[in-house]
Amino acid sequence: MESRLATVYLDAMGGDHAPKVNVKGAVLVAEERADIHVVLVGDEAKLRPLLETELQKSRKSRRELISIHHTAEFIEMDDHPAQAVRQKKDASLNVAMRLAAQNERSAFLSAGNSGAALASAIMYMKRIEGVERPAIAAPLPTTRGFLLLLDAGANTQCKPSHLVQFALLGSGYYRVLFPGSQGSVGVLSNGAEDTKGTDLTRAANEQLKILQEKNIFPPDTYRGYVEGGRLFHGNVDVVVCDGFTGNLVLKSLEGLSKAVIDMLKKEIKSDWLAMIGAFFAMRVLKSLRKRTDYAEVGSAPLIGVNGHAFISHGRSNPRAIKNGILRAAESAKTDLPNVLRKIIQEAELAAPTEKKEEA
Amino acid sequence: MESRLATVYLDAMGGDHAPKVNVKGAVLVAEERADIHVVLVGDEAKLRPLLETELQKSRKSRRELISIHHTAEFIEMDDHPAQAVRQKKDASLNVAMRLAAQNERSAFLSAGNSGAALASAIMYMKRIEGVERPAIAAPLPTTRGFLLLLDAGANTQCKPSHLVQFALLGSGYYRVLFPGSQGSVGVLSNGAEDTKGTDLTRAANEQLKILQEKNIFPPDTYRGYVEGGRLFHGNVDVVVCDGFTGNLVLKSLEGLSKAVIDMLKKEIKSDWLAMIGAFFAMRVLKSLRKRTDYAEVGSAPLIGVNGHAFISHGRSNPRAIKNGILRAAESAKTDLPNVLRKIIQEAELAAPTEKKEEA
Repeated sequence: MESRLATVYLDAMGGDHAPKVNVKGAVLVAEERADIHVVLVGDEAKLRPLLETELQKSRKSRRELISIHHTAEFIEMDDHPAQAVRQKKDASLNVAMRLAAQNERSAFLSAGNSGAALASAIMYMKRIEGVERPAIAAPLPTTRGFLLLLDAGANTQCKPSHLVQFALLGSGYYRVLFPGSQGSVGVLSNGAEDTKGTDLTRAANEQLKILQEKNIFPPDTYRGYVEGGRLFHGNVDVVVCDGFTGNLVLKSLEGLSKAVIDMLKKEIKSDWLAMIGAFFAMRVLKSLRKRTDYAEVGSAPLIGVNGHAFISHGRSNPRAIKNGILRAAESAKTDLPNVLRKIIQEAELAAPTEKKEEA
Repeated sequence: MESRLATVYLDAMGGDHAPKVNVKGAVLVAEERADIHVVLVGDEAKLRPLLETELQKSRKSRRELISIHHTAEFIEMDDHPAQAVRQKKDASLNVAMRLAAQNERSAFLSAGNSGAALASAIMYMKRIEGVERPAIAAPLPTTRGFLLLLDAGANTQCKPSHLVQFALLGSGYYRVLFPGSQGSVGVLSNGAEDTKGTDLTRAANEQLKILQEKNIFPPDTYRGYVEGGRLFHGNVDVVVCDGFTGNLVLKSLEGLSKAVIDMLKKEIKSDWLAMIGAFFAMRVLKSLRKRTDYAEVGSAPLIGVNGHAFISHGRSNPRAIKNGILRAAESAKTDLPNVLRKIIQEAELAAPTEKKEEA
């Protein structure tokens, strides 16, 4: 049993509702799972009473699977990411990252300042050899399941070689985390033909086709351009784009979902017949909402660093933290960094990219 | 009566279901309105019998308000836009554009090849003096009404001066078409702070702030960055971005709406209790769908040319064509090109853009 344990170092002070929801999320995990050890990193004076209260409420919870690692400092949501990481070395986010970087079969999770989490991961876990830019991969529901969209916002402006690596890393991640899947991948574009897109997407598309021809991807993995309207058909497992576009697509989808639910609630209130209908139809809507709910997904991986780093939504509730921990633990049980290192090396040997940034 | 008539030159051969839905759409307009004259531009041998059939079905329709202008050629959906416009001079799309360009109080509408419509508008209506790139403005529903997003795909790669002009043109269009509105405008970005965005959005944001300070916009019109998640709150009337980003945001929103409805239908079929609920809830859903339905909107304006040019969805049904004609006719009744010309001139005098393309 002990040998199969995964450890998740949780930045207990990160997030809009920290540390309370973070502690609750950890206790929910300990109720469900015997194979995950959660280390709450943060101010023990605050965390200890919260944890005791939650453990007393939850009789099923495995008390021995939750620890507290004390540190007094923490990073605020509006701190400058790079500065905060350099100057607040003992902030909960940085300490959790260092612990996750140093320990086998362990992962990092924070619902705090995501820019700081990225900077901290690059500083303490380091990038995988050859990786220019790590990316945030956001899960997006489709009619068949879900796909990973990267970069979801870590790198606002990108070069073609960045998109090429996002495709290699994203596809590799998918194959490792979902054994048996293909990890098929496409480049997000405004049309299916190779002549569409921008200078950036055309160059990336061309290089990815060469890598597919040289069998750096499994057969038929690279699928070329994917249009915005086709994202939800579930024809590819992974879609890559620059972080500016990725952020806008994801945030506008999130905004639309919220607006539709708000409009629906308003209209239901205005009409008693619709209210009766809604009572019955609610089961359908709930099932739909569950698939598009970030709390259900829990966390997004930061792909391209030497380890397992996950980011949760700042507005996370206990269920989101719980699911975020589960995702992070799944990853910690795999050999992800080594698999990705090999993929990047092979791609580099097959078709060296023209220009590369150094750390 | 006659003096208030607006004429819409409809490319009767353009669209996936042309010419049938185009003729039906025109007849629907003639049923409702006495102030719009529709000229069907296309193959008379095909159009005449279709029109007679539809007019016989519709007793209310004003037969004298629909004409046919014969031309034998037409542009296919997969024709190369610029080539088709140059080589097929007598194609229905080009003839309709020339007629709309030459006649007062008239507008152009096509559901055909939108790239060709753009090229044809630039060739025959010409750009408004000083305008570098005309843009397609797509209406997007919000919780308070709708906003215009431009560019929706006409210009894949943009310079800062293009975004600045999109903001000037879009805001001006909004004020002309919706008298009493402010035409408030923002730049689409991945964050609210001025430091966010790309080189493109930061330069545009800076120039737009200068134009606001110099009172080229009415007070408090330029609102800075707008985030993707805030699009649906209805805080601005107009949002600008490059055509690549605009296409992806719009198409992915359209894709999500379709996917949600598909999932809902599937889940309703699987459950008799939900089916009963759906019967009651359907009125709510229908009212919601209506607000996000492109057929309801009908057409998108091409802003920045010397005239009134509108583009409809290739998959338009008769209702979409009808509403598209209504939008085009509303525009034809305004002094839009002159108002926009004045705005561009004033902006140019107040803060000349560094570099400008010529025709």
